[in-house]
Amino acid sequence: MSKKREFMWKSAFRKELDERAFAFSASFPVDREMWREEIVVSLAHALMLKERRIVPERAGERLIEGLVGLYRDLEAGRLCLEGEYEDIHSFVESQLADRIGEDAGFLHTARSRNDLVVTDFRLWCRRAVRWLAEGVWELQRNLLARSRGEVRTIVPGFTHLQHAQPVTLAHNLMAYFWSFERDQERLKRVLTIINRSPLGAAALAGTPLDIDPQKTANLLGLERVMENSMDAVSDRDFALELTFICALISVHLSRLAADLILWATPEFGFVIFDEGWSTGSSIMPQKRNPDMAEHIRGRTSRIIGRVGQLLSLLKGLPLTYNSDLQEDKEATFDAVKTVAGCLAVASGIVATLTFDRDRMLQSTLRDGTVATDLADYLVKKGVPFRTAHRIVGKMVADLREKGKAFEDVTLEEFQRYHPAFDDGVRKVLEVERRVGDRVQLGGPSPRAIGRQFGKAERCLKRTEEWLRRFPDISDTLKRLLSPTS
Amino acid sequence: MSKKREFMWKSAFRKELDERAFAFSASFPVDREMWREEIVVSLAHALMLKERRIVPERAGERLIEGLVGLYRDLEAGRLCLEGEYEDIHSFVESQLADRIGEDAGFLHTARSRNDLVVTDFRLWCRRAVRWLAEGVWELQRNLLARSRGEVRTIVPGFTHLQHAQPVTLAHNLMAYFWSFERDQERLKRVLTIINRSPLGAAALAGTPLDIDPQKTANLLGLERVMENSMDAVSDRDFALELTFICALISVHLSRLAADLILWATPEFGFVIFDEGWSTGSSIMPQKRNPDMAEHIRGRTSRIIGRVGQLLSLLKGLPLTYNSDLQEDKEATFDAVKTVAGCLAVASGIVATLTFDRDRMLQSTLRDGTVATDLADYLVKKGVPFRTAHRIVGKMVADLREKGKAFEDVTLEEFQRYHPAFDDGVRKVLEVERRVGDRVQLGGPSPRAIGRQFGKAERCLKRTEEWLRRFPDISDTLKRLLSPTS
Amino acid sequence: MSKKREFMWKSAFRKELDERAFAFSASFPVDREMWREEIVVSLAHALMLKERRIVPERAGERLIEGLVGLYRDLEAGRLCLEGEYEDIHSFVESQLADRIGEDAGFLHTARSRNDLVVTDFRLWCRRAVRWLAEGVWELQRNLLARSRGEVRTIVPGFTHLQHAQPVTLAHNLMAYFWSFERDQERLKRVLTIINRSPLGAAALAGTPLDIDPQKTANLLGLERVMENSMDAVSDRDFALELTFICALISVHLSRLAADLILWATPEFGFVIFDEGWSTGSSIMPQKRNPDMAEHIRGRTSRIIGRVGQLLSLLKGLPLTYNSDLQEDKEATFDAVKTVAGCLAVASGIVATLTFDRDRMLQSTLRDGTVATDLADYLVKKGVPFRTAHRIVGKMVADLREKGKAFEDVTLEEFQRYHPAFDDGVRKVLEVERRVGDRVQLGGPSPRAIGRQFGKAERCLKRTEEWLRRFPDISDTLKRLLSPTS
Amino acid sequence: MSKKREFMWKSAFRKELDERAFAFSASFPVDREMWREEIVVSLAHALMLKERRIVPERAGERLIEGLVGLYRDLEAGRLCLEGEYEDIHSFVESQLADRIGEDAGFLHTARSRNDLVVTDFRLWCRRAVRWLAEGVWELQRNLLARSRGEVRTIVPGFTHLQHAQPVTLAHNLMAYFWSFERDQERLKRVLTIINRSPLGAAALAGTPLDIDPQKTANLLGLERVMENSMDAVSDRDFALELTFICALISVHLSRLAADLILWATPEFGFVIFDEGWSTGSSIMPQKRNPDMAEHIRGRTSRIIGRVGQLLSLLKGLPLTYNSDLQEDKEATFDAVKTVAGCLAVASGIVATLTFDRDRMLQSTLRDGTVATDLADYLVKKGVPFRTAHRIVGKMVADLREKGKAFEDVTLEEFQRYHPAFDDGVRKVLEVERRVGDRVQLGGPSPRAIGRQFGKAERCLKRTEEWLRRFPDISDTLKRLLSPTS
Repeated sequence: MSKKREFMWKSAFRKELDERAFAFSASFPVDREMWREEIVVSLAHALMLKERRIVPERAGERLIEGLVGLYRDLEAGRLCLEGEYEDIHSFVESQLADRIGEDAGFLHTARSRNDLVVTDFRLWCRRAVRWLAEGVWELQRNLLARSRGEVRTIVPGFTHLQHAQPVTLAHNLMAYFWSFERDQERLKRVLTIINRSPLGAAALAGTPLDIDPQKTANLLGLERVMENSMDAVSDRDFALELTFICALISVHLSRLAADLILWATPEFGFVIFDEGWSTGSSIMPQKRNPDMAEHIRGRTSRIIGRVGQLLSLLKGLPLTYNSDLQEDKEATFDAVKTVAGCLAVASGIVATLTFDRDRMLQSTLRDGTVATDLADYLVKKGVPFRTAHRIVGKMVADLREKGKAFEDVTLEEFQRYHPAFDDGVRKVLEVERRVGDRVQLGGPSPRAIGRQFGKAERCLKRTEEWLRRFPDISDTLKRLLSPTS
Repeated sequence: MSKKREFMWKSAFRKELDERAFAFSASFPVDREMWREEIVVSLAHALMLKERRIVPERAGERLIEGLVGLYRDLEAGRLCLEGEYEDIHSFVESQLADRIGEDAGFLHTARSRNDLVVTDFRLWCRRAVRWLAEGVWELQRNLLARSRGEVRTIVPGFTHLQHAQPVTLAHNLMAYFWSFERDQERLKRVLTIINRSPLGAAALAGTPLDIDPQKTANLLGLERVMENSMDAVSDRDFALELTFICALISVHLSRLAADLILWATPEFGFVIFDEGWSTGSSIMPQKRNPDMAEHIRGRTSRIIGRVGQLLSLLKGLPLTYNSDLQEDKEATFDAVKTVAGCLAVASGIVATLTFDRDRMLQSTLRDGTVATDLADYLVKKGVPFRTAHRIVGKMVADLREKGKAFEDVTLEEFQRYHPAFDDGVRKVLEVERRVGDRVQLGGPSPRAIGRQFGKAERCLKRTEEWLRRFPDISDTLKRLLSPTS
Repeated sequence: MSKKREFMWKSAFRKELDERAFAFSASFPVDREMWREEIVVSLAHALMLKERRIVPERAGERLIEGLVGLYRDLEAGRLCLEGEYEDIHSFVESQLADRIGEDAGFLHTARSRNDLVVTDFRLWCRRAVRWLAEGVWELQRNLLARSRGEVRTIVPGFTHLQHAQPVTLAHNLMAYFWSFERDQERLKRVLTIINRSPLGAAALAGTPLDIDPQKTANLLGLERVMENSMDAVSDRDFALELTFICALISVHLSRLAADLILWATPEFGFVIFDEGWSTGSSIMPQKRNPDMAEHIRGRTSRIIGRVGQLLSLLKGLPLTYNSDLQEDKEATFDAVKTVAGCLAVASGIVATLTFDRDRMLQSTLRDGTVATDLADYLVKKGVPFRTAHRIVGKMVADLREKGKAFEDVTLEEFQRYHPAFDDGVRKVLEVERRVGDRVQLGGPSPRAIGRQFGKAERCLKRTEEWLRRFPDISDTLKRLLSPTS
Repeated sequence: MSKKREFMWKSAFRKELDERAFAFSASFPVDREMWREEIVVSLAHALMLKERRIVPERAGERLIEGLVGLYRDLEAGRLCLEGEYEDIHSFVESQLADRIGEDAGFLHTARSRNDLVVTDFRLWCRRAVRWLAEGVWELQRNLLARSRGEVRTIVPGFTHLQHAQPVTLAHNLMAYFWSFERDQERLKRVLTIINRSPLGAAALAGTPLDIDPQKTANLLGLERVMENSMDAVSDRDFALELTFICALISVHLSRLAADLILWATPEFGFVIFDEGWSTGSSIMPQKRNPDMAEHIRGRTSRIIGRVGQLLSLLKGLPLTYNSDLQEDKEATFDAVKTVAGCLAVASGIVATLTFDRDRMLQSTLRDGTVATDLADYLVKKGVPFRTAHRIVGKMVADLREKGKAFEDVTLEEFQRYHPAFDDGVRKVLEVERRVGDRVQLGGPSPRAIGRQFGKAERCLKRTEEWLRRFPDISDTLKRLLSPTS
C-alpha cells in the first residue's frame, strides 16, 4: 500500500515516518465511520469555494462531480473503506486525486484538517442524537404499552429493598418512563450545542481568503457559525455532553435491568424473561439466565469509563488543536453505539416479559406495609402524625413478637392502642383500597395512572414529530445537489 | 446530646442503634448545609396542610410560627447547627418540638424524608446554579475587559504546542470566553431539570390524604409537579447533571490555567502573575510560582472524580430510595463549591495579569509561521492548494538546512520555486497584515474582533438580566409569609 | 491572626497575597492531619543536621527540645491545630519560633517543603496501611467465626442471580474471606513502595550541604533512600496505589453488602439485620432498613471517584513539584478513612446478623438445581457430558411444562430419557448429599470446608504477627529520643 | 453460519434466541484473543480427566489429539477465528466435534465456562505481564543510554514550571527511569496474584467427580489452587490490578510526553523530535508536530477510563458469576495493548531525540536560580536558613527592580546585605559548580549520577533474568505434550 506515503503534510520532511509511528497514530480505522459526513462537508465547502470564485469554476465543478461520485460508490459498496491511510481525510483526498487529478488539490483551500474533522464529528453526533432519540422513544413506547395492561396489578413498592407500600405495576413501570423522558429532553437540548459550524476556522486562525462561513453552515443545516476560530477547533464540549447523556441513559437502563434481574430470581418470581431474550448454562441444564439484562447493567460501566476518559483527556490541554483530541471520536462512537444497542435490547426484553401477577400480589399481602395507612388513618382522626407513627410502631413490634399480622388483630385490640380506631379500620387493611386511595398528582392509583398515561402519550407524540423534522445526512446531500443551492 | 436518641423511625425498635452505626450513617454534618431549604419547604408544606384542613387550623398556625422563628434564629446566629442529630430533618423537627410541643408532630403528615430531602436538594441546586452563573459571568467580564486592551497585540497561535499562525491576544483570550458562554447556556438549561417538585410523593407512593402538590410547587417557585411518585424520590439526574456542568466549567478553567502557567515560564515570558495571586518558595528566594493556576488545574480532577462517583453510585441501584443516595449531596456540594472557588480565583488572576507584549511579538517574528500565508498567496494566483503546500514545504526544508528565514529570501529565489511569486510577496511577510487580513466571521483580525466583542456584550447582558429575575430563597420565604400565599 | 502573614517564602515579594488567594490555597485544614509525622520527620532531620555539624550544636539541641515540647503539647491537647496558617509546615515553624526564637530558622536547612511534605505523607500512608490491615483482619475474623457455625447450613448458590447449585452457607461466607485475604497481601506489598525516603531531595536538586540521607531514613524506619531527587519530590505513586487498594477493599465490601441487602428482602428472608445495625422509616412504622449495608455500597463510589481523581491529577503533569499535587492528600485521607469506617461497620453487621436457616433450605429444595447432578450422574455411567446435558435439559423442559419437579419423577420415567438411570438416582436428589459430595480442594462440602478453615486460621495468624512488628509513629519517636539514636 | 445455533446451554429451551440478543451478547469477537489459552487449558483438563479415569481412556486420547490439531491449525493460519460463534468456548467445542465427533462432549466434564473463562483470562494476563515488562525494560534501557551521554549537560530544573535550580539532563532523564522501575516491581508482584488456578470450581460449587485441581494447576504453571470455588469464579481483582498498573505506567509515560512536548516548543527549544517520530500539518508547511507524544498523553485518559469502568463494573455485583463480568476482558485487553503500544513509541522517541544543549544552558544562566545557593552559602557561614532566605530574597527583589542579575553584583554590594559574604561568593555563581556540589545520594551532580547508573544497570539486569525464566504459553504447551506430563 504505497498510498499511505502520500501524507498531506510531508512537503518539508526529508525522512520517512517510522512504521511504528504510523501504525500508532493512524486514525483511519476509527474515523472512516464518518465518511458520509466527510464527503458532505467537502461538498458544501467546494460549492462555497466555487461560488466565491476562490477556485476556478471548472475546478469547482470537477471537485463536486468527484465527491458525488465517491459518495455514490461508497454507498453502493463499489469501493471499500480499506487501506493504509492516515485518516478519512487522506482517503477522500487520495480517491479524489485518482478521479480528477491535480484539481483535487483545490479542495483543501481555506480549510485545515482541524476545522474539517470537528465539522464531520459534529454532523456525526447530530446523527447520533437522532439514533438515540429513536431508541429511547421505542423503549418508552414499550414501557407505556406494558403499563396499560397492568393498571390494577398490585406489586410491593420498595425502599431500601424492603417493602414500603403497595403500588400498581403500571405505576412502577412508568417510573422508568419518566427518567427516559428526561433523557429525551436532554437529547433535544444538546442538539443546539452540537449544531454549530467550525468551518472556516481553518487550522486555528481563519484564512485571508474571502470565504463565506455562513453559506457552508446553511448548506449543512448548522444553526450558526462559531464565534471564535480558536475555540472552534479546540472545543469538544459537544461530544463530552453527548457522551454524558449516553451515561445517564445507560444508568437509567441499568436501574431497570437490575430491578428485572431481581424480580426474576426464584425468590421474587415476579417476572419471567422470554426464552428469546435469555440464555442457559453450559453446565446446569435448568438455568434460565437474565443474560441480556446483565449485559445492559455491565455496559453502563463502559460508558461511565468513557465519560471519565473524555473529561481527563480535555483537562489541562493547551489551546487549540492537540493530537490528544484524536481519542475523542472512538470514545464517543463507542458510547453512542453501546447505549443504542442496550436500548434496543431493553425494548426487546420489556416487550416480551411475562409478569406473574399472583406472585406479586401474594408478596404484597401480609407484609406489614399497611402500617403507614394505619398511621394516616389516625391522622385523619386528628392525631399528630408523629404520635400515630409511635402507636402503630408499637403494634408492629408487638405483632412481630407474636408472629402475627395486622389482619389478625381484633377491633378491641386496635382500640387498646388508641381509642380513635373504629370499624373503618377494616377497609384500611384492603390492599386495593390502599392503592386506590392514592389519587393525587403522580400517585399510583388507577385513577392517577390514567393522567400519567395521557401525559406520556403527549410526550411520545412530541418526540415523534421532532424526529420527523430531524435533519438527515441524505437530505443534506440532496439539498447540496439541488440546482438552487 | 441525648437528642440523637429521638429517632423519627424508632417506634417499632426495641434495641438501641449501635454508636458506630450512628456515627457512620448520620448525615447532619453534610445536610445541615440545606437548613434554609429545609425550613422553607416545611413552611410551604405546612401552609398547604393548613389550607387543605389536613391538620387542625391552630396546629397549622403554630407550625408556621415555629418554623419562621427557627429560620430567624438560625439566620441571626442565635442558634447553632450543632449536636448529634441524625440529619437536618431531625434537627428541625426536634427544635420545633421544643418550641411548639406535640403539634410539631403534625408537620410530618403526608410527607416522608424521601420526598422532603430531594425537594431541599433541588432548591439547593437551584441556588447553586445562580452562584455558578455569577462566577462564570464575572470571569467572562474580566476576559472581555482584558481583551479590549489587546486587540492589536500579536501572539503566536499554537497547534500541537507548536507555532501555527499569528493571532491577536484579544482573539486568544476570547476563545476562553466562548467556552464559558456555553457553560452559561448549560446552567440555564439545567435549571428546568432541577426546578420540579417531588413533594407529595411521600415515601414513594404518595398519600391517601387530600394534599395539593401543585400548591406547594407554586409556593416554592417550582415549575411543575413530578409525574410519578416513585420516580420523584429516586431521581438524582438533576444533581448529576449539575455536577457534570461543574466538571465542564472546571475543564475550561483548567485549560485557561494551563496556558497561563505555560506563558509564565521564563522561556515563554508572555505573562507575569501578580504578586497578590502567586506565591514563592520556602527554599528558593527567587521563585514566583503560579500557584493559584496550578490549584485550579489540580482541582479539576476532584470534580472529574465526583462525576465518576455519582454515575457509579446510581448505576444498578434498585428503585426507589436507597441509603446509597445519601452520598449524592456531599459530592454535589463539593463540586459546586470547588468550582465556585476556582471561578473567583480565575477572575482575580485574569484581572491582574501583566502581558509582556514585546516578548509575544518577538516570539512570533521569524518563526516560519508565514509559510501558510505564502501558500495562500500562491492559491490566489491560481495554484491548487496542495501544490502550493508542496512548494512552500520545500522552501521551508531548504531554509532550515541553511539556517535562514523567509525574510532572508530574495524575490529571485522565490521565483525559482514558483514563477507566480511577484513583488506582492513582501507584504505577505508582514505579521500585522497577515493577522489583519483574517477578517471573516470568527477570525482574529482587529476588524473581526470588534464583532466578537459586540456579541459578547449581548451575552453578558442577557445573563445579567436572567440573574436579576432568578428565584431566591429569601424571596420565596417572603412570598410564603405574605398574607395572600 | 497575623500569623498567616509570616509566609516562609515572602522574602522577595513586595505585595500581600490576596485574601481570596490565601483562602483558596491554604492546605492547613487538610495537612494538619499529619502533625505527628511533620514533627517526627523534623526531629530526625534536626538530629542529622546536628550530628553532621551542619547547624551549631547548641541550635541543634534547641531544635530538638522545641520539637519534642511541641509534640507533647499537641498530644496532650494543650495546644490546638487552629489558626490561619498556610500549612502544617508553617504552623510547626511558627510554633517553634515562639519557643526557641531565631534558632528555629536552622530547621529548614538542607530541606524544602517539597521533600518534607512527601516524607510526612509517606509516613501517614504507612500508618494507614496498619489501620486498614487491622480493619480487614477484624472483618475476616468475624466472617470465619460466623462460618464455623454454618458448616451444614444449605443455601442456594447463585450465578446470574439464578439458583445454580446448592452450597453451604459457610462456603458462601468464606468466599468473601478470601477476597479480603488478597487485600491483606496487597497491603503488605504496598508497604515496600511507601516506605522509602525522599528526605534530602530538598526542592528537587538536593543540596550542596554535607547531609546524610541514609541516617534520616534509618531514624524514620524507612527502607531506603530514593534514587533520584527529582523523582523523590514528584512521585505520588504510593498514594495512588494505596487509594486503589482502598477501592478494591471497598468493592469487596460492596459485594458483601449487596448480597446481604438482597438476602434481607422479604422475598429472600435469608438474613435479618440486627436492630443495632439497621434503621427504620420516619413514615412507615414497619420498616427495618439495611441502612448500614447500603451506606457501605454507596461509599464505594466515593473511593472509585477518588482513584479517578488521582489518576487524572497526575496525568500530564510536568516534573517535578506542582501545586496540583496538594490535592493528593485530601483524596487519600478520605479514601482511607472512608474504607476504614466501612470495615468496622461491616464487622458489626456480620457479627450480629441472624441467619434464617429454614428459609435458606426451603429455597434450595425443589428448585431444579439438581439437574447438573443428574447430568454428572450420567457422566459417571459413561455418557459424554454434552449428551447428558441435552438429556437432562429435555427433562427440565418437560417438567416445566407439566409444573412438576424431579422429585416427582419415577424411575421408569427417568429410564425413558436414558437407560443408564438406575436406583442410585434417588440419592442424587438429596440435597445434603449433593453438597457433601463436593469434597475437592476449594469445594463447598463440610469436609472441604474444614481445610479452608485451617488455611484461613493460618492467614489470620500471619497478619497478626505482621501487625505486631509494624513500625509505629510513637516507637519511631521513642527511638529518635533514645540516647543512642 | 448455522454453527451459532448449537448453543451449549440450549437443552431446556424451546424457543430460539432473538437475533438481536445474540448479536448483543456474543463475546467471540473479543475472547477469541484468548484462543491459545483456551486450548492449552482444555488440554490440561483433558490430561487430568484421562489420568483420573473420569473419561474413558480412548476418549481422553482423542480429546488431546483433537485439541493439539486445532492449536496447530490455528497457529499455522489453516483455520480462521471467524464465524457466528457465541464465544471462544463454543468455537473450540464445535471445531473439536467436527474433528472427533461425540467424544468432544467429554471435554466439558467437571468444568463450566465459569471456571474455564477465568483460567484463560488469567493465563492471558500472565502473558500481558511479560509483554509489558519487556516494553518498560526497553524504554528504561533507552533512557539510561541517552542519560549516559548527558552527564554534564546543564538544564534548568523546574518546580511549578518555574526555574528552581539547575540540574544535569542525565539526572532529569533518570527521574523517569525510576518511576518505570517501580512499575517493574508492580508487574512482578501482580504476577503472584494472577498466577492462581480457578480450575475445578466448575460453575461455582465444584463437582462431585473425583478431579485433581492441583494437577491441572501444575500443568499450567499456576502457583496454587484457589481456596474457595465461589471466589474462584467471581474474582476479577487480578485483571483490575493489572489494568491499574497499566494506568500507572501510562501516567508515567504521559508525564514524560508532556515534558518533551513542552521542551519542543520554539520558546523552550530544548529538544527536536526526529522526523521519523513526528508529523506535519496539512495546511501549514513549516510545522513539525510532536504528534506521537501527544497521542501517548491522550491515550492515558483511555486507560484511566478503563480503571473507572472496571471498578464500577464490580461494585455491588452479587456473587458469583454474572454476565456483567463479560466486559472485563475487552477493558483489560485494550488497556494492555494501548500501553504496550505507547511504550514502544516512547522508546522510539527517546532513542531519536536531539538535545539542544546550548539552548538548555542559555536558559539556565542568568535566571536567578542561584539564589538558593547564595542562601546555602550563608548557612555554611553560620546564618540560620530562614534568615539567609530573607536576606537573599531582599536582594532578588532589589535586582528585579533594577533589571539586574546576581552576576552584576559587586562584593561590596553583597556585603551590604550581609557581612558574611566574602570572595568565595563568586564560585557560587558558577552553574557547573552549583550542580557539581550536589553529590549526596540521589543528587544531580555527575559524581552522584554515576552511582545512579550503577543501580539502574543492576535493575535492568534483574528484570532481564526474570523475563528469561518467565512461563510462556508455548513452553506450557510443550510441557503438556511431553510424555511425562
